Amino acid sequence: MLPVKMCISASAASRIIFQCLRFYCQKPPKKLRICEAVSSSDMGTNVKVQGWVRSVRHQKQNLFLHVNDGSSLQSLQVVASSQLNHRLLTFGSAVEVSGLLVKSPSRRQEVELQANQIHVVGECNPVDFPFKVKERHDLEYIRQFPHLRCRTNTFSSLLRIRSEATTAIQLYFRDKGYVQVHTPVITSNDCEGAGELFQVEPAFQEKQEEDGGQPFFSVPAYLVVSGQLHLEVIAGAFPGVFSFGPTFRAENSQSRRHLAEFFMVEAEISFTQSLEDLMKVMEEMFRSTTEHLLAQCPEDVALFHKHVTPGHNDNVDLMMKSSFNVITYTEAIDILNRSSQKFAFETDWGCDLQTEHEKYLVKHCGNIPLFVTDYPYTLKPFYARDNLDKPLHTVAAVDLLVPGVGELCGGTLREERLDLLKTRLALAGLDETYRWYLDLRRFGSVPHGGFGMGFERYLQCVLGVDNIRDVIPFPRYSHSCLL
Amino acid sequence: MLPVKMCISASAASRIIFQCLRFYCQKPPKKLRICEAVSSSDMGTNVKVQGWVRSVRHQKQNLFLHVNDGSSLQSLQVVASSQLNHRLLTFGSAVEVSGLLVKSPSRRQEVELQANQIHVVGECNPVDFPFKVKERHDLEYIRQFPHLRCRTNTFSSLLRIRSEATTAIQLYFRDKGYVQVHTPVITSNDCEGAGELFQVEPAFQEKQEEDGGQPFFSVPAYLVVSGQLHLEVIAGAFPGVFSFGPTFRAENSQSRRHLAEFFMVEAEISFTQSLEDLMKVMEEMFRSTTEHLLAQCPEDVALFHKHVTPGHNDNVDLMMKSSFNVITYTEAIDILNRSSQKFAFETDWGCDLQTEHEKYLVKHCGNIPLFVTDYPYTLKPFYARDNLDKPLHTVAAVDLLVPGVGELCGGTLREERLDLLKTRLALAGLDETYRWYLDLRRFGSVPHGGFGMGFERYLQCVLGVDNIRDVIPFPRYSHSCLL
Repeated sequence: MLPVKMCISASAASRIIFQCLRFYCQKPPKKLRICEAVSSSDMGTNVKVQGWVRSVRHQKQNLFLHVNDGSSLQSLQVVASSQLNHRLLTFGSAVEVSGLLVKSPSRRQEVELQANQIHVVGECNPVDFPFKVKERHDLEYIRQFPHLRCRTNTFSSLLRIRSEATTAIQLYFRDKGYVQVHTPVITSNDCEGAGELFQVEPAFQEKQEEDGGQPFFSVPAYLVVSGQLHLEVIAGAFPGVFSFGPTFRAENSQSRRHLAEFFMVEAEISFTQSLEDLMKVMEEMFRSTTEHLLAQCPEDVALFHKHVTPGHNDNVDLMMKSSFNVITYTEAIDILNRSSQKFAFETDWGCDLQTEHEKYLVKHCGNIPLFVTDYPYTLKPFYARDNLDKPLHTVAAVDLLVPGVGELCGGTLREERLDLLKTRLALAGLDETYRWYLDLRRFGSVPHGGFGMGFERYLQCVLGVDNIRDVIPFPRYSHSCLL
Repeated sequence: MLPVKMCISASAASRIIFQCLRFYCQKPPKKLRICEAVSSSDMGTNVKVQGWVRSVRHQKQNLFLHVNDGSSLQSLQVVASSQLNHRLLTFGSAVEVSGLLVKSPSRRQEVELQANQIHVVGECNPVDFPFKVKERHDLEYIRQFPHLRCRTNTFSSLLRIRSEATTAIQLYFRDKGYVQVHTPVITSNDCEGAGELFQVEPAFQEKQEEDGGQPFFSVPAYLVVSGQLHLEVIAGAFPGVFSFGPTFRAENSQSRRHLAEFFMVEAEISFTQSLEDLMKVMEEMFRSTTEHLLAQCPEDVALFHKHVTPGHNDNVDLMMKSSFNVITYTEAIDILNRSSQKFAFETDWGCDLQTEHEKYLVKHCGNIPLFVTDYPYTLKPFYARDNLDKPLHTVAAVDLLVPGVGELCGGTLREERLDLLKTRLALAGLDETYRWYLDLRRFGSVPHGGFGMGFERYLQCVLGVDNIRDVIPFPRYSHSCLL
């Protein structure tokens, strides 16, 4: 801080003279990110920072700014003589500040910047700017401004968390020797989730007509609903493979858990014969990613747990210190039928579990993640491995349900037995379409299985965010595709 | 190796007895990946490996197999008594082998597995299987079998390299403090690259009609041609951001350098005022990724440099030991005009550089990567920063051209000056459409710039692969969308 009293001690005066001398004699200021500046122990260094103003406070002789550059949640306090004030120095404006890093006299921060130069790089009219200084806008409000919401503390924390979670998941799989596969977005597979497919065609039909009316790809092409079948192809030559990318559903839904474009982590493991193996990977991935996030982004996660969903850290603690529960689908139906709660949807054996059921089951089992295994044969797609347990007749499928969200992951052992798969595909009239898939079982077939995790739902679960649109940079859903 | 001679020495006999005893007394075999087994120093351990048979050789008393599981290019040599032979033990079949890891008597490998059990998990009819034992099929042949080509050595090497290059790029940006952003695939921006857009609609039109004929997103929606504009949004609150994901062009091309769906690495850097800053990041990223690949996948890269494009390692060496060249567009045009070579396309100032020009320029400048800067204003999109150098009139744009491939990266400083951008957009009639983009300049605008790199072209450049379809797991191009 600049001296506020006019009469200063001799030692203070000499210190100021020394600092001024130092400033004029030394090399150009060292450019630092804000995260480096606030954690620096290099007091007296001449530095330059660049960022956006988060607050401005004038006193008679001094000017206090907080400058943030997105390198961390923390802003750097800048202290300057009020002579450096400028009418364009407002909340939201972009600035470049040079000066000396000094120990802050305040307990609120270790370090502050004594500015000797402040340059407003880009102005920001506070009347037009939709966010207001020192106001904590809620997620719904900031969602209206997809091109600006990253400039709020909450959303910039979310983006850092999302980036770090991406790294954590990729590191988890890499450490275990999985190969990352870029499964395609455009596919000619049209059978899975048929009712919810997006179709792809060149925007300008003239082109097609020149081409004799043939579709661009010669066959109808869609956006993938899952990379699983493509991952299974590659799993035919590797011990384990994974993908991490966008998937699509043309679902006409305004729910808080669905998007038309969302990210999926999918893994496929060769030579796997038990659901336990799959559950182990799902649980380990969840834990290792969450541990990584809590360790690498403690302040960003704390912002959510303090201001967005107060108390949610207790839920996360509970999930992290407990082993995940496991019940069969049959046990789940039994629990639902013995419950006194009235459900909107039926709970007969053979019915699919609805969100209300999933949430009840998770609560009933102690509010920690819950695996539900061995679903009815008729509920799961053709590739699910038959448990051959007639008359019950189930398949080796497992869903992971988590507090607040419901279904987070879904996985199955895949039917690797050529004869069984062939019969099932033939019954559905799909044996010609999936000839290539049958080939995978014809040439060096191995027992294998895999799962997919909705990445946005994972973030909802860990951060406690209610609406899925608030955990993705550019949400797409029916009637909305902004930017 | 099992003893071939019938009369064996006493010490050999006792060693065999010891090994048998050891086998029966000890715990179940330790499951190892092939990459762990071939590099193990733990001789005498009882292990189990799983994988696919790459070769089978029978001798009178012995059977030799090579088993590969995709964990590395290397296969494990398995030696077994011929009694363990089985008619289903063929090239391509999946096996599980248990036995003792021993030092190999051959110089070809350090370790081999003395099998006491071989289980054929999945058969593979060698007549129907499109790949033949010990044949090196060329890339064009294996491309016909997109669901099986990962089972060849070449393509499994490619997949490991691709995975490792993905990691390397992400680590490069993470280490430099960039935040990874998942830019969307579906977008309502329709202006950039207008002629080559894919449009997206739900596959089942009934749905739409129920909905009063409105498009699913209420506005026409397309597949992104670049994540740049979305990255620019996020760069408005961070020092640096990057994305790594699929992008799309409905280009009716059968070229060796184009795909309808390809991966792009894009970066956007805030507070950047010079093309030098951008070039530094491009060059550093190229070098650090390539160094990582050469260090982490030496055998896989060597397979390409030895068998697919013999001698290409010399080209890579040259690129790695030289500083990249820099010339302006104006200098490039001058070089082309002074050349004795006849070009199919014009080389007047103002004309776009074609592949033939790019390749000539790279060769002319020593066959190392070449930056070309400051392109004519009329050649680049609206967001390129005006150099205000009339009458020449150029923009701050830079392309990186590389040997064999041509354009690898393209970048620009972005026009951050509101008035200039507004005028340019208004002239193109786009000021209403890009109101949100203008907002980015209205509120805390900073000088910034960025670039995109075609990931497949990067792999072509480093591996020397001629056809882009051979460096992506599931290539999509006009008239082809297999699986």
